[in-house]
Amino acid sequence: MKYIFFFLFASIISSAQVTKEQLNLMPWPQNVSVSQGSFVLTKNFKVNITGAPNSRIFTGATNFLRRLDGRTGMFFNQGFVTGLNEVPNAQLQINCVRAAEIELYEDESYLLDVTPNKITISATTDVGALHALETLLQLLQNNSNSFYFPVSKISDFPRFTWRGLMIDGARHFMPVDVIKRNLDAMAAVKMNVFHWHLVDDQGWRIEMKKNKKLIEKASDGLYYTQEEIKNIVKYAADRGILVVPEIDVPGHGSAILTAYPEIGSKVVNLNVGSTEKGQQLKQEQTYTVERNAGIFSPTLDPSNPKTYEILSSIFDEVCPLFPGKFFHIGGDENEGKDWDANPKIQEFKKKHNLANNHELQTYFTMQLVPMLKKHNKELMGWEEIMTKNMSKDAIIHSWKGANEGLAAGKSLVEAVKGGYKTVLSNGYYIDLMYPIESHYSVDPMPKNVVLTDEEKARILGGEATMWSELATPATIDSRIWPRAAAIAERFWSDEKVTDINNLRKRLKTVSFRLEELGLLHLKSKEGLLRNISNNQKSDALLDLSNVCEPLKGYTRNNEGTEYKMYSPLTLFADVCTPDASDALEFNQAVSNFLNNKSTDNQIIVISFLNKWIKMDTDLKTLSTNAPLVQPVLPLSKNLSDISQQLLLKIEKKQNVDVSLLNDLLEKCNSKEHADVELAVYNSLKKLVQA
Amino acid sequence: MKYIFFFLFASIISSAQVTKEQLNLMPWPQNVSVSQGSFVLTKNFKVNITGAPNSRIFTGATNFLRRLDGRTGMFFNQGFVTGLNEVPNAQLQINCVRAAEIELYEDESYLLDVTPNKITISATTDVGALHALETLLQLLQNNSNSFYFPVSKISDFPRFTWRGLMIDGARHFMPVDVIKRNLDAMAAVKMNVFHWHLVDDQGWRIEMKKNKKLIEKASDGLYYTQEEIKNIVKYAADRGILVVPEIDVPGHGSAILTAYPEIGSKVVNLNVGSTEKGQQLKQEQTYTVERNAGIFSPTLDPSNPKTYEILSSIFDEVCPLFPGKFFHIGGDENEGKDWDANPKIQEFKKKHNLANNHELQTYFTMQLVPMLKKHNKELMGWEEIMTKNMSKDAIIHSWKGANEGLAAGKSLVEAVKGGYKTVLSNGYYIDLMYPIESHYSVDPMPKNVVLTDEEKARILGGEATMWSELATPATIDSRIWPRAAAIAERFWSDEKVTDINNLRKRLKTVSFRLEELGLLHLKSKEGLLRNISNNQKSDALLDLSNVCEPLKGYTRNNEGTEYKMYSPLTLFADVCTPDASDALEFNQAVSNFLNNKSTDNQIIVISFLNKWIKMDTDLKTLSTNAPLVQPVLPLSKNLSDISQQLLLKIEKKQNVDVSLLNDLLEKCNSKEHADVELAVYNSLKKLVQA
Repeated sequence: MKYIFFFLFASIISSAQVTKEQLNLMPWPQNVSVSQGSFVLTKNFKVNITGAPNSRIFTGATNFLRRLDGRTGMFFNQGFVTGLNEVPNAQLQINCVRAAEIELYEDESYLLDVTPNKITISATTDVGALHALETLLQLLQNNSNSFYFPVSKISDFPRFTWRGLMIDGARHFMPVDVIKRNLDAMAAVKMNVFHWHLVDDQGWRIEMKKNKKLIEKASDGLYYTQEEIKNIVKYAADRGILVVPEIDVPGHGSAILTAYPEIGSKVVNLNVGSTEKGQQLKQEQTYTVERNAGIFSPTLDPSNPKTYEILSSIFDEVCPLFPGKFFHIGGDENEGKDWDANPKIQEFKKKHNLANNHELQTYFTMQLVPMLKKHNKELMGWEEIMTKNMSKDAIIHSWKGANEGLAAGKSLVEAVKGGYKTVLSNGYYIDLMYPIESHYSVDPMPKNVVLTDEEKARILGGEATMWSELATPATIDSRIWPRAAAIAERFWSDEKVTDINNLRKRLKTVSFRLEELGLLHLKSKEGLLRNISNNQKSDALLDLSNVCEPLKGYTRNNEGTEYKMYSPLTLFADVCTPDASDALEFNQAVSNFLNNKSTDNQIIVISFLNKWIKMDTDLKTLSTNAPLVQPVLPLSKNLSDISQQLLLKIEKKQNVDVSLLNDLLEKCNSKEHADVELAVYNSLKKLVQA
Repeated sequence: MKYIFFFLFASIISSAQVTKEQLNLMPWPQNVSVSQGSFVLTKNFKVNITGAPNSRIFTGATNFLRRLDGRTGMFFNQGFVTGLNEVPNAQLQINCVRAAEIELYEDESYLLDVTPNKITISATTDVGALHALETLLQLLQNNSNSFYFPVSKISDFPRFTWRGLMIDGARHFMPVDVIKRNLDAMAAVKMNVFHWHLVDDQGWRIEMKKNKKLIEKASDGLYYTQEEIKNIVKYAADRGILVVPEIDVPGHGSAILTAYPEIGSKVVNLNVGSTEKGQQLKQEQTYTVERNAGIFSPTLDPSNPKTYEILSSIFDEVCPLFPGKFFHIGGDENEGKDWDANPKIQEFKKKHNLANNHELQTYFTMQLVPMLKKHNKELMGWEEIMTKNMSKDAIIHSWKGANEGLAAGKSLVEAVKGGYKTVLSNGYYIDLMYPIESHYSVDPMPKNVVLTDEEKARILGGEATMWSELATPATIDSRIWPRAAAIAERFWSDEKVTDINNLRKRLKTVSFRLEELGLLHLKSKEGLLRNISNNQKSDALLDLSNVCEPLKGYTRNNEGTEYKMYSPLTLFADVCTPDASDALEFNQAVSNFLNNKSTDNQIIVISFLNKWIKMDTDLKTLSTNAPLVQPVLPLSKNLSDISQQLLLKIEKKQNVDVSLLNDLLEKCNSKEHADVELAVYNSLKKLVQA
């Protein structure tokens, strides 16, 4: 009787048939098919592992169970998965043929087969199986009182082998917990390369036991210990992620030269105090850890043998911390000012027949190749390293584009045609606060360029870059996520998966689920708003933040000096994100209304306008006890003012003064307030002009 | 002209006079006086340090600047404070006579003097100065467009020298970032002892390089590395906090005995397979890492010399990680079952003239004294270690009370009368989910007992204990804060500071400000609600959580087996906290209404009742797509049902069936749903009976 009841019940709850279109998978798998029926979760759900995997699959399966239990409140009986074939009759069976190596071109494919009573994951490697577990978590469905997986078959593999995220731990130091939770998030969307920018003008972030000066003089006490680095590399490997460290040379050299001024390129006037001590003092005063953002002249001296001695010693200490095959040496944004002004360096160029600074930099970079080879590492660098004598073994990291006055991805094509392997980051600079669509529409495989299969194969993939001039541990998650998930899909899924509306729909759920990994991208907003509002209830402030976006490109940090590395990043602009949620909804509402001026469509537009008028009133009240609200009042007033006029025009059908309307509209296009812009300007303009 | 304008402006904005009663200081200082006028913050605000402090003051002053800048958005010019007398004309002058030692009885006093143009902090030690900086941060005031400190003089010092917080990193492992942010919060409310519970039945959490088995077999891979421990000890010392580690023996021994079954007390039947290998296997099967909560029998064997060999080796490795003077060896809850059943141990007792298990445990504990003395450490233990032969050097940690069938603080009085120093934790068990008032009203100095001055002096202070059976890294902050801040006040402030309403008022601001330290106690709620509501808008769920409190005492975890260490703690009870905010407000509203049935008072009561009726409707809708909402529906329905009847009674003046009302009321007293209770029951009862 019990059983009959159970089956009846099971058939009722599984009756809501799920279609493929309803699934919120990301990156979208290569092949998905959904059939009638479902696998209903119970507390007896267990996992069993067979085959010959690396032990990372046990950690992965245990974490999978905890996350699924956290979502469903099932109280699973199984606690830890610690070995092979522990529960032969488990409902979820995972088989991995062999252990994965954490390197490029590894087999990451998997098959996932959900039937009403059993789920099977088959993968060549454990990393493929980990990807399958993430897909399975994304498959989770529910009705009013149960959780289930739809009966389905998924076969999947990545389009590109390099699916990277770079985090800059130099500008603002990002502690271990920030790195770890972002590695978890990367794994959740099947990214597999963590590029760790560890050194820049603003700081040296690697504990050094031999070259201690780097830490003592150039870190402000903020750095990763060698043990922490090893732990993070292991943590990444357990999630199928390769770590690529970066030490940026010869430019971006302020931190290194603060520790070792003697290898800098700047000509120091040594006439004053020519004693050895006096000279040293003078040199030390030449370089300091940089507090601003931008491109600075401190550059290593390529003509000084000591430069290579020190770098060699540094690589000897740092390389063993990273078992991966690649080492990124930066090489970007060396403007050569100090080289040009240094007669010794000019002489060196002549002596070595180096026609210009590019060739000089190539000379410099080529000296690093054997230092890395010694540790079995291949050199990678930003696109500036690609000059005519550069070794073809180097990987070219393509980053320049419109911002630098170049065609997007120009260096990528040059690289593959020149015989280099390459990774694309132009188009994926998520620190610039551009909308999701702008990243999602960029494909690492260039269009309108004919490439041979060999050339195509040299395009390893792409990498999202998160520079941290304007990000802190409290805000960086909201700068990376959920946009990086859309980029991850670009790197993994078929090139035909490009529907932005479909992406947006799925991204809502994906972003929500990332929170279970400890990410603060959603939560941080609430805390920042409390600070700005001085702990007053702040619905109005939230409403305003949902139509404002941080200034784009590098315009928020004017000349790189407005915000220093210790300036407050607890402000209204830090609450706001690209793709402001209410702005997206309003844009849609306006578009619908202008297509069809039905009462229903009008009501939605008008409700937004009314909301903003009330918001402005509430914000004024709020501001009487919250100084940090003052800077946003002009934004709110501008939006309220035009909303009032548009109400008269649309709802009351009054004739509104056109020049007044245009004046008010243009005020909404201002970028002068609180480092944000109103993301509804274009839609307001359409309403004004309609 | 500019200057005249500035001065006019400054005088206007500083005109709102602040009174002492408006300040949200916690712990309340010993002496506070506020005068007319204020010190207005500008971006030129700087700090200067003189005297002979420990370098921790530089870190402290730098962190102070960043926090103040984060709150005010001032963009201070000063970035880092790194040495003495860097800015002789700075507005904030800090003088410390000497460096503090991180130990009991250190001078933690300070003087803080705010005048309109200058702020002076004078302290004997840098730790006193750090306390002053926290007080200064709490003094911050604002009007609509500026931030200022009221002109004031504060002289302050602690009432007790031991102001502790214990965190249990054994039941649920709490990673480094959890510990660090809680140390920051401790410092913010002037707590100075972090008691770190590192070992229990559920796990061994200290990396061991010599006794590796402890980590390999008894940690599930979750432990603090020795480097992490040293870093945390340093982090604590930089905030004036002493770390007291605890290894709990001889009871609570499951983890240790999983690694070393050969020193367990349980009689293992060795008849089967008497080969050495067979015996070993049998022993290994005897002990496993515990997954439930409760008191378990695995206990170290006090009659086995090997026990002391292993413990001595463990202390040799662990003691050097902790420079402080005290080592906590637990000693609690040893029920002696395995001792009684073991003939070898009984024989040992007879041989050593040990009358009972208490004396046997004292014998055991006394063997640890020299092991600790060797490392210059004094032994501390839970009150069970206090038996007639116990060394008078030991510190007695008093914890038992009503829950254990004893008078509260009984052992505290026995200890000081017996010549022991002691610390009180009974009354401060914050994991039990009791309201703030119940902790705040407990004083470490017993009332109604006559003690000599010498005896009083042996009461070192108190300690809040946060056991982690039902807390995870995501929820522990909300279990500790803000209640621990109220306890911190009890330990620091004058015994006459006891007004609970005044405390509650201040606590709102204190709790809000703790968020700037990265604490998740406020934010975590939002994320958990998103999970429960399945990412649907959840105002109704939030409303319900604001009148519900987690089941108190140990009733949530029935018999300790409902929740295992890997069970989901992402549920409705994990969102709720003691002192449910709307319940407090409703209680006040009901009390006002019953005193004076004015229309105004009635409106407030009725608005709550209406809110709960709507809430129930909304929750039903929400639940159709959120299985985790189902368990809370009965709570919401019960509250809605009685609210409807009370509306009829109060608003419509109808005669409502008394027995119906009482039935509905008693349903609101249920503890059967979602592991929470309705915190408005008592006030509802008053309305029913009115």
